[in-house]
Amino acid sequence: MIAQTPPMGWNSWDCYGAAVTEATVRENADYMAKHLKPFGWEYVVVDIQWYQPTAATHAYEPFSQLAMDEFGRLLPAENRFPSAAGGKGFKPLADYVHGLGLKFGIHIMRGLPRMAAHRRLPILNSEYLCSQAADPNSICAWNPDMYGLKSDQPAAQAYYDSIFRLYAQWGVDFVKCDDIAREYPHCKREIELISEACRHCGRDMVLSLSPGPAPLEQAEHLKKYANMWRITDDFWDEWRLLKAMFERAEKWCVHAGPGHWPDADMLPLGALRQCYGKADWTRFTPAEQRTMMTLWCMMRSPLMMGGDMPKNDEFTLRLLTNGPLLAIEKESWCAHPVTTAEDESVWIAPRKDGTGCYAAVFNLSDEPRAVAVPPEALEGINGRAAELWTGRETALPLSANLSPHDAAVWFIRR
Amino acid sequence: MIAQTPPMGWNSWDCYGAAVTEATVRENADYMAKHLKPFGWEYVVVDIQWYQPTAATHAYEPFSQLAMDEFGRLLPAENRFPSAAGGKGFKPLADYVHGLGLKFGIHIMRGLPRMAAHRRLPILNSEYLCSQAADPNSICAWNPDMYGLKSDQPAAQAYYDSIFRLYAQWGVDFVKCDDIAREYPHCKREIELISEACRHCGRDMVLSLSPGPAPLEQAEHLKKYANMWRITDDFWDEWRLLKAMFERAEKWCVHAGPGHWPDADMLPLGALRQCYGKADWTRFTPAEQRTMMTLWCMMRSPLMMGGDMPKNDEFTLRLLTNGPLLAIEKESWCAHPVTTAEDESVWIAPRKDGTGCYAAVFNLSDEPRAVAVPPEALEGINGRAAELWTGRETALPLSANLSPHDAAVWFIRR
Amino acid sequence: MIAQTPPMGWNSWDCYGAAVTEATVRENADYMAKHLKPFGWEYVVVDIQWYQPTAATHAYEPFSQLAMDEFGRLLPAENRFPSAAGGKGFKPLADYVHGLGLKFGIHIMRGLPRMAAHRRLPILNSEYLCSQAADPNSICAWNPDMYGLKSDQPAAQAYYDSIFRLYAQWGVDFVKCDDIAREYPHCKREIELISEACRHCGRDMVLSLSPGPAPLEQAEHLKKYANMWRITDDFWDEWRLLKAMFERAEKWCVHAGPGHWPDADMLPLGALRQCYGKADWTRFTPAEQRTMMTLWCMMRSPLMMGGDMPKNDEFTLRLLTNGPLLAIEKESWCAHPVTTAEDESVWIAPRKDGTGCYAAVFNLSDEPRAVAVPPEALEGINGRAAELWTGRETALPLSANLSPHDAAVWFIRR
Amino acid sequence: MIAQTPPMGWNSWDCYGAAVTEATVRENADYMAKHLKPFGWEYVVVDIQWYQPTAATHAYEPFSQLAMDEFGRLLPAENRFPSAAGGKGFKPLADYVHGLGLKFGIHIMRGLPRMAAHRRLPILNSEYLCSQAADPNSICAWNPDMYGLKSDQPAAQAYYDSIFRLYAQWGVDFVKCDDIAREYPHCKREIELISEACRHCGRDMVLSLSPGPAPLEQAEHLKKYANMWRITDDFWDEWRLLKAMFERAEKWCVHAGPGHWPDADMLPLGALRQCYGKADWTRFTPAEQRTMMTLWCMMRSPLMMGGDMPKNDEFTLRLLTNGPLLAIEKESWCAHPVTTAEDESVWIAPRKDGTGCYAAVFNLSDEPRAVAVPPEALEGINGRAAELWTGRETALPLSANLSPHDAAVWFIRR
Repeated sequence: MIAQTPPMGWNSWDCYGAAVTEATVRENADYMAKHLKPFGWEYVVVDIQWYQPTAATHAYEPFSQLAMDEFGRLLPAENRFPSAAGGKGFKPLADYVHGLGLKFGIHIMRGLPRMAAHRRLPILNSEYLCSQAADPNSICAWNPDMYGLKSDQPAAQAYYDSIFRLYAQWGVDFVKCDDIAREYPHCKREIELISEACRHCGRDMVLSLSPGPAPLEQAEHLKKYANMWRITDDFWDEWRLLKAMFERAEKWCVHAGPGHWPDADMLPLGALRQCYGKADWTRFTPAEQRTMMTLWCMMRSPLMMGGDMPKNDEFTLRLLTNGPLLAIEKESWCAHPVTTAEDESVWIAPRKDGTGCYAAVFNLSDEPRAVAVPPEALEGINGRAAELWTGRETALPLSANLSPHDAAVWFIRR
Repeated sequence: MIAQTPPMGWNSWDCYGAAVTEATVRENADYMAKHLKPFGWEYVVVDIQWYQPTAATHAYEPFSQLAMDEFGRLLPAENRFPSAAGGKGFKPLADYVHGLGLKFGIHIMRGLPRMAAHRRLPILNSEYLCSQAADPNSICAWNPDMYGLKSDQPAAQAYYDSIFRLYAQWGVDFVKCDDIAREYPHCKREIELISEACRHCGRDMVLSLSPGPAPLEQAEHLKKYANMWRITDDFWDEWRLLKAMFERAEKWCVHAGPGHWPDADMLPLGALRQCYGKADWTRFTPAEQRTMMTLWCMMRSPLMMGGDMPKNDEFTLRLLTNGPLLAIEKESWCAHPVTTAEDESVWIAPRKDGTGCYAAVFNLSDEPRAVAVPPEALEGINGRAAELWTGRETALPLSANLSPHDAAVWFIRR
Repeated sequence: MIAQTPPMGWNSWDCYGAAVTEATVRENADYMAKHLKPFGWEYVVVDIQWYQPTAATHAYEPFSQLAMDEFGRLLPAENRFPSAAGGKGFKPLADYVHGLGLKFGIHIMRGLPRMAAHRRLPILNSEYLCSQAADPNSICAWNPDMYGLKSDQPAAQAYYDSIFRLYAQWGVDFVKCDDIAREYPHCKREIELISEACRHCGRDMVLSLSPGPAPLEQAEHLKKYANMWRITDDFWDEWRLLKAMFERAEKWCVHAGPGHWPDADMLPLGALRQCYGKADWTRFTPAEQRTMMTLWCMMRSPLMMGGDMPKNDEFTLRLLTNGPLLAIEKESWCAHPVTTAEDESVWIAPRKDGTGCYAAVFNLSDEPRAVAVPPEALEGINGRAAELWTGRETALPLSANLSPHDAAVWFIRR
Repeated sequence: MIAQTPPMGWNSWDCYGAAVTEATVRENADYMAKHLKPFGWEYVVVDIQWYQPTAATHAYEPFSQLAMDEFGRLLPAENRFPSAAGGKGFKPLADYVHGLGLKFGIHIMRGLPRMAAHRRLPILNSEYLCSQAADPNSICAWNPDMYGLKSDQPAAQAYYDSIFRLYAQWGVDFVKCDDIAREYPHCKREIELISEACRHCGRDMVLSLSPGPAPLEQAEHLKKYANMWRITDDFWDEWRLLKAMFERAEKWCVHAGPGHWPDADMLPLGALRQCYGKADWTRFTPAEQRTMMTLWCMMRSPLMMGGDMPKNDEFTLRLLTNGPLLAIEKESWCAHPVTTAEDESVWIAPRKDGTGCYAAVFNLSDEPRAVAVPPEALEGINGRAAELWTGRETALPLSANLSPHDAAVWFIRR
């Protein structure tokens, strides 16, 4: 089974928007293989509009000419992904990533290209036309490329089957499907069609749904039909967004488990927004970066690095290779907050192997602050503790003097 | 100035849906000229999708091929409007209607054809493309033909100017613009662009906005930018819809006045739904038809006959040619309800010329019922009264024994 | 029948709050008889807490000792209303007012005194106790004196009957019932009980309901069970409140008619808030006072002077004795706004006698502004016009150069 | 510290409503001491209106005469609690309960008696009157006895201090405060006053807040100021209420921890509604009773037996003395649902001592149903399991054939 622990990898959006190229993907894959693979990182994901020849930033051009085959299936723009030439699609690039011992993922929008509907193109291996699958009233609020599908029409399943079979041929291991996770209730059935196509395409693929916020009351549907789903709108390197994640994490933490992971979104670390021709770096302070990594690990969110990794500095690389911290993703379970107040938060998580538990403290205020783990919250676990950012050993009770927006996290032995 | 009293005419929707033909329009125009013109009826209006060659019913086919010129302006489908051949558009048909002493109107959807945007066609007499005017996120919830326009772009005004100038060349006197009257607030500015194009196209045209319900709180905006606007969703020959109109009429009556008329929608009388190849007639009882005509006149709604008029029976023709009743539209003002209860309603309206007032009573219950005009409601007007459906003279106080859903209406002399 | 035109009079609230005394009432009655009676003013109304011995301002003291008889019926506090001594209640004061050719009114709260329920007092001429009529969960949000009644209990009707019979004995002509007009739906039935008690108490009394905003969707219920009802929360001498009245007036104007009048609240003119031991005068500018009087007359609101009238200056007296303006209350009907925009408003109202119409213009902006009556809005009435504040005659079209917040109003002859 | 694990005890409401007597309390205390004490049960709680001499059922009589001292503090009605005679209050009864090795609790309503305010009684050890502390607008929606307090007045804290000091003198160990847990935001500050009075009264008392649903977004406030709080409206022996608890349990489980426990309400088991003079027994089936006990233990809700215990049958007694099941309350932590669907639910909870975990399965459907624990949900814990209702040992994977509404629960060793 896939996604038994939260997926970890890299995604091109935060650094290159809609404009990522094959060269960048290869460089990041090379970097991951060399520096991050031993710590559990494995997925290399090409984000939105790889089929748009003129995409240059995070913006979308309406009514543009998308790369597409005669069955209305989008193809990598060859000017941006040269190895796709000759109709080979993403197969050569996926092969390259697999050769590094990693896994390959792509982004898709729900639906089919508007042009494929207006041109009435046929759907491969079916008796249907794209114009029969497309719903002229189902459009994305923020991207102009696609029409959503009529979920009650056999043509809709046929179209989704046709693209997932293509992705299986290419060797895709991870599909991030967009314009769908917060589109309940009208897209509920469409999620099921996509999940069905994904699970029967002949290859194991993680199915990730975006954008958030997915509705909490649909948790069981999401757990059944997807492997991960976004719990907020797009997350970027702003403290207010990071602070707001604590509330969402509290609501969603009970729904994290093998095969189904609430997703706090990519990690906007290191070199971001590289498509604008100028140097740009995460605006998160070092303290905020520790807080983000600590919360994502405690809540067991998937971890997807968003920065252009070859440009990582030493600090960023260490963030991504803190083995004891990253172990929380694989070794803890049943995490939950002890308190979440305006100024601070405390989380605990038992170890699956019974050897103790993790406890994290967060300073959510704008002032230095000592944050303690209430002794009774450990309910009798009372051995020695090691702080995972500093490595320091300490006795109970646990407390940390934290700079603004900073975090500490301990493993406490029984 | 136009629309100094409420416009009166015929519209093709109720009888032919999206499938009206030139022959039908000519027959109805001929009928109107011969039978109705003396009573104030004058507009002959071709409703939706005159540009769709395959339209056959009240339904819309997505992704169809619309008749369009090289500037993205829709044209009459020549297979349905033969006189439009050779690029002449609606000019020949408008000329014919004018020759009968009548006026000619057409229906449009806000926006421009989706295909014109995807094909990036130029906008006539401008430097812009249709793809610059179209908003890929602005679609109609019930019709798949168009994209709404980006109201903040000069290209949008340029497109609307280009179509209204064409309509002026054709000789159009009345434009019913659809997908807009209830689309506040997002279409507020688009209404202004359309009004601007209409008022500066070089020809007087009544501007009518659909569908309803237009929002009451936008009454002043509607009064400023349009000549009439729908106050409910589509009205058909069902008692519950007619009964519900009383509540809307009460709310909107204070906004009726020269140049700006709340519109209770077409009159579904006589031969309706003729595009389905079978005889179909209004489901309104004679009593309900009297109630509808009486309410529309008392509230001074525009009157647009919806049935196929050459098929009118004697009863229907008399409904449409009751001169004393229709005079209420032109001779009364300041109408309002005295009471509107679950079972009955009473309306009054002074005569503009000071000679007396009108009073109407409605039985909204499903049982026979006597409905009276409270004597004090006439505030001192106390001469003889004549009932306008029967012609009977009577003294005050006024009361009528009404069958279920029936109405009576009097002119009371001072 | 009562209230065939809108009631006009004086009310003690704006000048004396809960602290009005008999002396003040007599002085204002004397003034009215001498100066205002010829212009239609007639009701003299004692507002809230005449039963509270220690009331001193507009505030209410909780858990105080109210003057009450052995049947739980409130009595005038004898220290404030000396003529009530010996159990005579308001009879002597009402007699005095009647002797001046005027009418007498009082304020009541819905319900019965909390103390009467806790003491389990008997209800006169019934087998019930006050504790059976009172609903311990029905309290007023802003006054601590009373419990509302259990409308489904015979004890409740018995209590209301007992107090209205007492008021009839006293000679009351007008009852302003408070804590009720905006308390739909839970007080809907209680309104009916009070109306029933009022109409069968043996004496004609105007029934006025407060405070607003009464819900517009209950208009027919209000018209059936009351003679006037408040359409806003308490109105005071603030421009923002006066400006906001235009929107309410537009919604309610269709519901004004003989016997039932939407009430825009007292006129805060002249000497206000006199219970605080210092001089205090209306904060409305002369222009705003003209605007208020003009709007109240055009919408035919009841007129209740709120200031301490013996202190009127010449300007205030002239406001209250402008005969041609006040005639609008009695001679017009079917008024409605032509436009109400952010900056200006225009209203028209036909004369009942057919001799012409009234038209008013209002400058709602904070700058001088010319406001015109659109010529087509008069729909053919085109004789000479006289402006009613200045007396100036003029020809059409009508326009006025208005200072900020000012108004003009014309009578236009046919 | 108090309430380090969820409080367990008995409460008089479900069996005697407002009419409980001293004799009943003593009998239930005796029973608890003899049969339940070894399993962790300890609190004996007298519910609402012990101060009302005529209370006879679950209903409340308005405007009744409550037992009260000269400082407005309610006292046990001596006709129902004879040992309270002579002003001794609950001291003799508390002493008796303590003598059995148990703890004593009482119910209170927030606020002070309405009569104490109307009589303007003094507050003990203060300069204030009850009429200064009481808010005449703050009443309970379902009980007529009290006024809530003005939280911003020193008199309010003085009153609460005066009653908690009295309870400390009596020997009270547990206070259930009613009309407050769902009364956010207006009672937020009043909760703080009560908590303050409770924590400084000189005796440890559990503070329990009712009724629910307490608002989830106030979780941190509740955790800070109370020891337990209701998460639903009153819970009774109806399957739809029990089924609905699963959704609330899922939302609240992350907030359970030492000192602060979301409360699923009393256990309506055995002899209920005994105040109506006829035999009445829980309507829950045996399966439903197992489901309730299992869910309450897994979510670590407080356990308060609601039935009249001396009438327990053998089945009921065994429910309340299943040691391995009740151990979950004290030995587990970090519980959460794995899935909650319409038809079934699965919960897991690690052991605090690291020796394994608990897993429970629930059949929420009306048909027999096999419900399994998904093997991956145990995340590697894979030793032998024992089912706690039957005692049967089994190997993984875990599944149970459950009758409608039944449950199974295992302890799985590492």
